[in-house]
Amino acid sequence: MAAEKFSIGLDFGTNSVRALIVDVNSGAEVATVTHDYCRGDHGVFSSPSDPHVARQHPADYHEGAAGSVVAALEEARGVAGFSADQVVGIGVDTTGSTPIPVDEDGLALGLHPSFHDDPDAYAWLWKDHSSVAEAERITALAAEHRPAYLGRCGGVYSSEWFWSKILHCRNVAPNVFAAARSWVELCDYIPAQLTGVTAPAQIRRSVCAAGHKAMFAREWGGLPDTEFLAMLHPDLADLRSRLYDEAFSSDVRAGGLSEQWAHNLGLPAGIAVAVGAFDVHHGAVGAGITPGALVKAIGTSTCDITLAPGTAAESPLLIPGVCGIVDGSVLPGRWGIEAGQSGVGDILNWFVTHVCEGDARTHEILTAEAARLQPGESGLLALDWHNGNRTVLVDARLTGLMLGQTLHTTRAEMYRALIEALAFGAHTIHQRIGEYVPLERIVACGGITLKNPMFMQILADVTGQQIEVAASTQTCALGAAIFGAVAGGAYARAEEAQARMASRIAVIYRPDPARHATYGRIYGLYRQLHDTFGVPGHSESLYNVMKTLLEIRRSVTV
Amino acid sequence: MAAEKFSIGLDFGTNSVRALIVDVNSGAEVATVTHDYCRGDHGVFSSPSDPHVARQHPADYHEGAAGSVVAALEEARGVAGFSADQVVGIGVDTTGSTPIPVDEDGLALGLHPSFHDDPDAYAWLWKDHSSVAEAERITALAAEHRPAYLGRCGGVYSSEWFWSKILHCRNVAPNVFAAARSWVELCDYIPAQLTGVTAPAQIRRSVCAAGHKAMFAREWGGLPDTEFLAMLHPDLADLRSRLYDEAFSSDVRAGGLSEQWAHNLGLPAGIAVAVGAFDVHHGAVGAGITPGALVKAIGTSTCDITLAPGTAAESPLLIPGVCGIVDGSVLPGRWGIEAGQSGVGDILNWFVTHVCEGDARTHEILTAEAARLQPGESGLLALDWHNGNRTVLVDARLTGLMLGQTLHTTRAEMYRALIEALAFGAHTIHQRIGEYVPLERIVACGGITLKNPMFMQILADVTGQQIEVAASTQTCALGAAIFGAVAGGAYARAEEAQARMASRIAVIYRPDPARHATYGRIYGLYRQLHDTFGVPGHSESLYNVMKTLLEIRRSVTV
Repeated sequence: MAAEKFSIGLDFGTNSVRALIVDVNSGAEVATVTHDYCRGDHGVFSSPSDPHVARQHPADYHEGAAGSVVAALEEARGVAGFSADQVVGIGVDTTGSTPIPVDEDGLALGLHPSFHDDPDAYAWLWKDHSSVAEAERITALAAEHRPAYLGRCGGVYSSEWFWSKILHCRNVAPNVFAAARSWVELCDYIPAQLTGVTAPAQIRRSVCAAGHKAMFAREWGGLPDTEFLAMLHPDLADLRSRLYDEAFSSDVRAGGLSEQWAHNLGLPAGIAVAVGAFDVHHGAVGAGITPGALVKAIGTSTCDITLAPGTAAESPLLIPGVCGIVDGSVLPGRWGIEAGQSGVGDILNWFVTHVCEGDARTHEILTAEAARLQPGESGLLALDWHNGNRTVLVDARLTGLMLGQTLHTTRAEMYRALIEALAFGAHTIHQRIGEYVPLERIVACGGITLKNPMFMQILADVTGQQIEVAASTQTCALGAAIFGAVAGGAYARAEEAQARMASRIAVIYRPDPARHATYGRIYGLYRQLHDTFGVPGHSESLYNVMKTLLEIRRSVTV
Repeated sequence: MAAEKFSIGLDFGTNSVRALIVDVNSGAEVATVTHDYCRGDHGVFSSPSDPHVARQHPADYHEGAAGSVVAALEEARGVAGFSADQVVGIGVDTTGSTPIPVDEDGLALGLHPSFHDDPDAYAWLWKDHSSVAEAERITALAAEHRPAYLGRCGGVYSSEWFWSKILHCRNVAPNVFAAARSWVELCDYIPAQLTGVTAPAQIRRSVCAAGHKAMFAREWGGLPDTEFLAMLHPDLADLRSRLYDEAFSSDVRAGGLSEQWAHNLGLPAGIAVAVGAFDVHHGAVGAGITPGALVKAIGTSTCDITLAPGTAAESPLLIPGVCGIVDGSVLPGRWGIEAGQSGVGDILNWFVTHVCEGDARTHEILTAEAARLQPGESGLLALDWHNGNRTVLVDARLTGLMLGQTLHTTRAEMYRALIEALAFGAHTIHQRIGEYVPLERIVACGGITLKNPMFMQILADVTGQQIEVAASTQTCALGAAIFGAVAGGAYARAEEAQARMASRIAVIYRPDPARHATYGRIYGLYRQLHDTFGVPGHSESLYNVMKTLLEIRRSVTV
């Protein structure tokens, strides 16, 4: 393999887009630039009448792609051996499901003057929860008529996903729905724009997005069938033929960089742009995922990505309550498994900003105080459902809980109890996946993993497993760059590119046996709450919960 | 009845003692003085190793009695028609159960130089919860051998009460126990000191304290029998003969004011000092209690006082989960019923000081914001158990709970949810008592009732009953003055004195039917939590709780 080849990874997040230039041979991160979205509230449009609405203006995506790449190339210019001519490919990952209504030319409707101020014509951001009723309808209908559709997405279809959002749009903004020639996931929209292959029927769609969010599977011929969609709404059935029949993993080229974009960015025209995928799936690749490893991307929320052993050609894998199991969504030819927690950093931020009316300094103070506490010392127990429960209950209509408060409870104790609840929630997910896929390693990546040792140690102590932390702060963009390198021909297979380019491990958190034992007792109580509030029909006495917490507190404070 | 007679009420609280001089004929409050305790933390000694410890130094009582009466007489001197010579009697109420170990002369051990710095020799303040294990032992033993003892005090003996505290003293401070000739409730200690009738065997003990806290009842010959006490500890059986065989209601004279105290206070020697009682029982009398009325004294905690219809000579009354039912504890010849919540203002103060790190101004801000919310709008639901549950679960080993938090929940919403939880807790008590005693009126008194209209309106809306608020801010001291007048011969019966002297009603809060209907739905959810966490063996699915709260929120915010 020749030296002096580079790949670009583009990572479209909730508030910004990041461009990362990577040396294909060494994996060295040559340049990294973050471009903040400038519209809405840090890129997000909400609604005063419905806190569940979250939209993004597509102009932020166009500007973000151009701005971040140009700035990254500028930054790389000073690096010895780098030249823009040596960039062989671009990979793209984005948030999702973030579907965008587009016109006949594949341009986002929100860019049309007539829809410029209508958020229903913008991108429907992953965390938009306005489609709860539609999601429930889809789940009920599929449970009755197409149980196989649900089996692949954990048994419950989410309000965060493709069909829920499009059906909600049909219900609340029929003019937008009528104007849309098709709907394109953000992770497909960016490669389409970069390659100029924008006609909706021509866009190479991501199997990651299709399989995890749009109930796409080869075994039933792609998207849900027309008859099923017609039961939801005749207009959805009509839309189906304007969507797609095929979907691809990210080792596949979406196309070559268009002359126009090549000129704008200062890159060679025709270089490979890989088929896109969701951020955490690429992040798992960037973090070095292998079969038997679980990669946790921990941020405002958490995504857990695993690969089942064996190839996806074998019999289908089903794990109840797990958001998605998709052939090729992480690495080609393997079952990619996605799970996650719908609020993590968001929950801690809520506590600090809304309850404590504090700021970043408050986080530091609470962290320092909370770090001095032993497991069980607070006597508190919380549920991490402030933004619903994605895995294993798959239920947006759940909320937070804390118990054990006395007249002496401090805010640092409450802060720690929230972190512990997040670790208990993670443990519940690991246990469920572990029943189906042997988990040999846990690798964590994302902001919190490098910045909050207390959080990571609690995670190790609760789960009883060591947690490896990826050194790269840009594992998603790094994964995208890995696929850019593969699509650009630098490597034949993603695993080969990973071997050279994936992140090293920065630090390993090891569980303390005594703390793990205490947390084991508290986790039993967490599961009582989890099941009694979260599992339909589960009855239990909770008379022991508060009393046992008091006993544990007494036993750890003597 | 001659004009120009006055009575003095003395009310010993947690942080101060109040003296009130009342015109016996008109009920006019001629002078009122508050004397703050100067020892410990606002009068209270805690322990760094055990947050449940709460003691008071007896010197604060001696100084408080003298200081408050002298200052009140000084204040009254300017009132037309008043003269200290016209004071006919003194009534006394105190916190309780607040037992004090005393020497052979009836002097508190804490006043001895050898015990001056030993809090175990001080008064064991009502809210001292260090005797949880002893209370459980007493409950278990009585359940097996003397179920009748438990029936009268709600089925569970509390760690706040007389025998638990004395047994705990025997266990942790045997030197103090050994030095104590007897134990005297604070409400008996003060009249004993004022009258000079201090020899333990001579002190006229309060039936209110004896019956509610010491398992005293005429039907089994007074205090618990020696055999039962010996099962707890042989030393308790030995102590029994050094306690008392009789107990009295507060219309009875404890004695005449001693020459010494008359001189110190500037009052006529020999004027009547009434037998003491607990603050809230006298407070109910001062608030104008009649059969069928429930008087709520709302402060740091809440006491609910009721009178059963008919006379106590009729068959015994039993109400499960109610702290005490005692012949003559409120008015002579009637069943006095005591219930309550173990934290009210304390819980709101905890939230403001510990969670918000705020102050009185924070209370005002949160109250103003919370007052703008509709019932159900927050989506939150809490349990008011931060200091345990006194009625109807009688369980100190319960703790607080809040659920329904989202990433948008505000501290004002949480503050209101705590107030609503306190109202739900009150409603649970009213419903239980109402099953046995028809409740025709609810009268509230205490600081919060006049200062926090939102709290009172929520109480009316939750209970669906109108709440009358007593105008007097000193109903306890007023009740004591009423008994001072009766003991001093100004009236033959307490009811006659009440007709002239009890507080008028300042304001009436009436329930709003729509808000009551919404709270009715939420109260159903509160009871699900209450029973599942609080009632042994009660199993239930709580799957509906969070979802119903979200539905209610949606229904009240459209």
